[in-house]
Amino acid sequence: MAARYLEEFTVGQVFDTEPVTLSEADLIAFAERYDPQVMHTDPQGAKDTAYGGLIASGHQTIGTAFAQFIKIGIFAENSLGGPAMDEVRWAAPVRPGDTLVTTAEVLEVRKSKSRSDRGIIRMQFLTKVDGREVSRFQTTTFLRRQPSEDAA
Amino acid sequence: MAARYLEEFTVGQVFDTEPVTLSEADLIAFAERYDPQVMHTDPQGAKDTAYGGLIASGHQTIGTAFAQFIKIGIFAENSLGGPAMDEVRWAAPVRPGDTLVTTAEVLEVRKSKSRSDRGIIRMQFLTKVDGREVSRFQTTTFLRRQPSEDAA
Repeated sequence: MAARYLEEFTVGQVFDTEPVTLSEADLIAFAERYDPQVMHTDPQGAKDTAYGGLIASGHQTIGTAFAQFIKIGIFAENSLGGPAMDEVRWAAPVRPGDTLVTTAEVLEVRKSKSRSDRGIIRMQFLTKVDGREVSRFQTTTFLRRQPSEDAA
Repeated sequence: MAARYLEEFTVGQVFDTEPVTLSEADLIAFAERYDPQVMHTDPQGAKDTAYGGLIASGHQTIGTAFAQFIKIGIFAENSLGGPAMDEVRWAAPVRPGDTLVTTAEVLEVRKSKSRSDRGIIRMQFLTKVDGREVSRFQTTTFLRRQPSEDAA
């Protein structure tokens, strides 16, 4: 998909992303660096936790969801970065071999009051495994506006 | 530090964590998997973005902050996982070689109404580089309560 400007997004649009499967090795590699808790790093030790086995770090689940959206290419060079993420919720554990399916929905689109070249887009990301919600979060991103004809 | 139970935390407590430095290779390795945008993955291409050079994925900054807190060992086996993260804010870019210094403050401590073995702790994480805020976020975690003497 080609990169879109702010004006090309509308509230309620939903974007599907490619499913992605996380292996046990993926879970451990991420958690050793970014969330070193037994339930995320140690398949044997995790059996004695409340989860009964290895589960993904929640940070890995939301990072994976966001990456799948970025790979669509619809933000690309028009993204000017994001100042905020809100209402991150982890509803169910993600286990080795689970396939994450993420959709992204446009919640809000508005022009910046102070910068005429950009606007703000808010999106809701929802990730499921076997049709069941595992996580969701909302992002706020600065996005370029369509260059005006005056400027051309 | 030894693992603490819910009752051993009080609102306003602040925990310092070890500083950690992120290299250019760290930034690229994370972003290629979890946030594949030019400003995070391509040192040359990043020069042409609004940031003028490579910056860390926001997901990496908050994951790093959380990892430094976990490494203190104060949650350890008493953590029963976290259902939520709120009000994530990225105030300034993190660049290769930056040293992140994170503190964690207790915002709220309460017993679970439905499960007598646990409670809920909410914490605020604040990360600075050279004394300047780069990111913050709030977490909600289920934490074990002190075993009652009756159970012993």
